Amino acid sequence: MNYSIIVYIIGYVLKIEGLFLLLPCLTALIYQEPSGFAFLISAAICLFLGIIATYKKPQNNVFYGKEGFVTVSLCWVVLSIFGALPFLLNKEIPSIPDALFETISGFTTTGSTILTDIEALSKCSLLWRSFTHWIGGMGILVFVLAILPIAGGGSQMYLMRAESPGPSVSKLVPRVKHTAMILYGIYIVITIIEIILLLIGGMPFFDAITSAFGTAGTGGFGIKNDSFASYPIFCQGVVTVFMILFGVNFNVYYLFLCRKHKQALQSEELRMYLIIILVSSLFIAFNIRHLFPGFQALHQAFFQVGSIITTTGFATADFNTWPELSKMILIFLMFFGACAGSTGGGIKISRILILMKSIKKELFFIVHPRSVKKIRMDGQVIEHDILRSINVFMATYFIIIMLSILLISLENKDTVTTVTSVITTLNNIGPGLELVGPIGNFSSFSALSKFVFMFDMLAGRLEIFPMLILFMPGTWKK
Amino acid sequence: MNYSIIVYIIGYVLKIEGLFLLLPCLTALIYQEPSGFAFLISAAICLFLGIIATYKKPQNNVFYGKEGFVTVSLCWVVLSIFGALPFLLNKEIPSIPDALFETISGFTTTGSTILTDIEALSKCSLLWRSFTHWIGGMGILVFVLAILPIAGGGSQMYLMRAESPGPSVSKLVPRVKHTAMILYGIYIVITIIEIILLLIGGMPFFDAITSAFGTAGTGGFGIKNDSFASYPIFCQGVVTVFMILFGVNFNVYYLFLCRKHKQALQSEELRMYLIIILVSSLFIAFNIRHLFPGFQALHQAFFQVGSIITTTGFATADFNTWPELSKMILIFLMFFGACAGSTGGGIKISRILILMKSIKKELFFIVHPRSVKKIRMDGQVIEHDILRSINVFMATYFIIIMLSILLISLENKDTVTTVTSVITTLNNIGPGLELVGPIGNFSSFSALSKFVFMFDMLAGRLEIFPMLILFMPGTWKK
Repeated sequence: MNYSIIVYIIGYVLKIEGLFLLLPCLTALIYQEPSGFAFLISAAICLFLGIIATYKKPQNNVFYGKEGFVTVSLCWVVLSIFGALPFLLNKEIPSIPDALFETISGFTTTGSTILTDIEALSKCSLLWRSFTHWIGGMGILVFVLAILPIAGGGSQMYLMRAESPGPSVSKLVPRVKHTAMILYGIYIVITIIEIILLLIGGMPFFDAITSAFGTAGTGGFGIKNDSFASYPIFCQGVVTVFMILFGVNFNVYYLFLCRKHKQALQSEELRMYLIIILVSSLFIAFNIRHLFPGFQALHQAFFQVGSIITTTGFATADFNTWPELSKMILIFLMFFGACAGSTGGGIKISRILILMKSIKKELFFIVHPRSVKKIRMDGQVIEHDILRSINVFMATYFIIIMLSILLISLENKDTVTTVTSVITTLNNIGPGLELVGPIGNFSSFSALSKFVFMFDMLAGRLEIFPMLILFMPGTWKK
Repeated sequence: MNYSIIVYIIGYVLKIEGLFLLLPCLTALIYQEPSGFAFLISAAICLFLGIIATYKKPQNNVFYGKEGFVTVSLCWVVLSIFGALPFLLNKEIPSIPDALFETISGFTTTGSTILTDIEALSKCSLLWRSFTHWIGGMGILVFVLAILPIAGGGSQMYLMRAESPGPSVSKLVPRVKHTAMILYGIYIVITIIEIILLLIGGMPFFDAITSAFGTAGTGGFGIKNDSFASYPIFCQGVVTVFMILFGVNFNVYYLFLCRKHKQALQSEELRMYLIIILVSSLFIAFNIRHLFPGFQALHQAFFQVGSIITTTGFATADFNTWPELSKMILIFLMFFGACAGSTGGGIKISRILILMKSIKKELFFIVHPRSVKKIRMDGQVIEHDILRSINVFMATYFIIIMLSILLISLENKDTVTTVTSVITTLNNIGPGLELVGPIGNFSSFSALSKFVFMFDMLAGRLEIFPMLILFMPGTWKK
C-alpha cells in the first residue's frame, strides 16, 4: 500500500475543501451573518492541514486499484468530517451525528435531512449545504484530478474509476487530467445556464444558486421547508428539465461538443432513460388525475419522476398520499437511478439495460442452444468482466440493503418507513415514504441508525466496493 | 419442437392425476360426503383424456432443453386446471379464478388461500387441497419419471432439471428413473414418520395426514381457520422439525442412506441453512420475549422461522403484530427459501451461498489483482455456466417481482400488503403481512390480481424460466 500518495491526495482534497469553504464565508459577508466565522475557521483548519499533508511530494506516484478505492473512500470520509465542522462550530446543527449526517447527505447528493426547520438556518449554512451537493455531484476526486500536479495516467484512472458512477468509465480524451477538466467544464456551464433560467423565471438570486447546486449534483437539499412547492411553475419546469439533464451520462454532452450528434442520440442508455421517464410520468399522471386539475397532474408527475429517477429528491407535492401505483412506480425508479457517468445515483440505467440483455440472451439460448450470441451495448461487446462486476455489484447492493434494513428495524418504526429510508439513502435520493416522505425527515432516528444511513449514503455514492474495501483486513497488510 | 412426446407426457400426467383424485373419493366414502362425486367425475375425466393422449406411444423419444421447459410448464398448467375441477363441480369454490388460485397455490406448495372459512369445506375437499401440496412438493414430473415406460435418459434429465429447484440438479444414480424412485421413496418414508409422530402427539388421523401432506410439500394449507395455533405444543414441535427436514436437499438423505454420513453433514448449504434458522430464531425469540411467557417465545420463533424459510407457511401466531425486527427477518427469510433439491421454494440457500462467495472473490480480487481463485462449493468448482444462470435467475426474479407489484398496486391496497403478497406467492410461502398476514387471506383481490399471483406461484415453483419460455415466440417456431 502506497500510504504517502494517499496522504498526499487527502491533503490536496483538504486544501480544495478549504477553498470551497470560502464561498459560504463570502455569503456570510454579504448577508452580515456572524455564523459565517465558523466557515472561516473551518476553511483555515482545512487549508492548514492540507498544506502540511501536501508539503512533501511523494516520490512514488504509482498505485493500483486497491489504493484507488481506499484513497477515494478515505477522501470522502475526511471531506465529510471537515465539511460538518462549520455546522458544529456555529451550533446550527449542534449534534455530531446530525452534522455528519447532513454533510454526508450533502456530499453524496442524497438530500435527506435531519432538520425539522430548514428555514431557521443562516444563509451561509444554507449555501454550504447546497454547495456540498454541487461538489459531490461530479466528484471531489475528479476535481482534484483536473488540477493535481502529479503525473501517472494509469494511477489517476484508478481514482477516476473508483469515484465515477456506472459499470465502466471511459476516458473522453487520452489524458485523465483533460477528461476531468472537460467534465467539470460541462458541469459548470450547464449549472450557469440553469441559474440564468431560474433568474429569468423570477427566482431570487440566492434561491437560484442554491437550487441550481441542488439540481446539478442531483442532490435535493432545498432552502425552504416545503422544498419546491411554493416556487412559480416556470421555475419548477426549469428544474424538471435540468434534473433530467444532469441525470444524463456526461459522455453524451461531450459527443455533442465534438459534433457527433448522431452518436450521442443513439446512446441506448440515454434512450432507455428518456423512455422510462416518459412512460412513468404518463402512468403516474393518469393515476393522479383526480388529485390535480387539468394539466397540473402531468406537471406534477414529470417533476416527481424527474426528481426521483435522477435521485435528486426535490418535491413539489407529498407523493406519500398518492395512489399505490404511483408510489410503487416511484419506489422502483429509486432503484433504477440515472445514467452512468451522470451526477445521479441508484443502480444506473446502463446496469439495468445490460442485465435485461443478459436475460434475453439466456432465454434465447434455451430456445436455440447452439446459438453464439454476445451482449452488446451501443454496438460494443460487453466483456465478461463487466458483466461479472455488475452481477457482483447487484448482489452486494441487495445484501447491504438487507443488513441496513435489519439494523434500522431495531427502531421499530413502520415497515414502509424502515424499508424506504434505507432505499432512499443507499440510492442517494432523499425522501422515502411515510415518516421519511417528502414532508418528513430523518430527525427521529437514533444515532446508530444515522450512522447506518451515513454508511449507506457513502456506499451508494461510491458504488459500494470502495467502502467495503476499507473493512477488509487484507487491504491494510503490507 | 417434438409435440407428440409433449402430448404423451401431459397425457401421462393426467392419468396419474386421475389416480390421485381417487384418494379424496375414498375420503368422501369414509365420511359419507356427497361432494365426493365431484372428485369421482374429475378422476374419470382425467383418466379418459389421459388414456386418449397416451394411446399411441410417440416414435421419437428425443427432446432437448426447450421441450423440457415447455413440457414441464404445460404439465403444471394442465395439472392445475384439472385439479381445480372438483372444487367447481361440488361448488365449494364456485368461481373459476378462485378455484384455480387455490389449486395452483396447492400444487406449487404456496399455501395462500382465497377461502375465508376453511372449516366450511368438506373433508374430501380439504384432503385434496392438502394432497396437492404433497404432489407438488417433490414434483409431478419426478413422479412420472419414476414410472414412465419410455427410454431416453438424456431427455428425461431435461424434464427433471426443469422441475427440480436449485441452481443445478445432480442425479443420485446413473439412471434418471432410479433417481426419481429414490427421491419419492425418501419422501414417502419421511411423510409416514411424521404422520405417526403426529398421531402419537394426539392429533386426529385426518388432521395428521393433511398436516403431514402440508409439511412434506412445504405447502402450508391447514384445515383450520387458525392454521396451527390450536394444536398441542408437541405436534407444533413435530411440525417445526419436519418443516426443516423437508427443506433440506434430498441428496443429503441419500448420502445418509449410502452411509456417507460425513459427506452429508459437510454440505455447505445444509450448514448455512441450519445456521440461518438458528440465528434468526434466537434473534426473533429475543425480540418477541415480551409477547410470550418464558420458553414460549423460543418455541414461537422456531416454528415461524421454520415455517417461513422452508416456505411452508403454517402459522401458530399472528407475526403481523410482532416487532419490526422480527417482521423484517421473516420477510428476508421469505426471499432466502430452503435448500436446493428440497420441496421448499424461494431463491434457495445454495444460490445465496454462491452469490456471497462471488462477492468475496471480487473483493479479494480488488485487493490481490493477480490472484486466480475459483468459487468452490463442497469442494467442487462452480462452473461459469452455473454462476451465469444464477445471476440471470436473480435478475429475472426481481423483474418479475417488480412487474407483479406494479400490477397488484392497481388494487390500491396498502404498500406492505401489495409488496408482501407478491413476495409470498412468488416464493411459494403462503402468508405475507397486513391483509395477507397469517390471519388474512387473498379473497379481497380482483380476478386480474389473482391471475398475476397464479403466474407468480407457478413461476416460483418452476424457477421462472420454464414459465417465461412459454411466452417466447421463438419457442413455438418449427
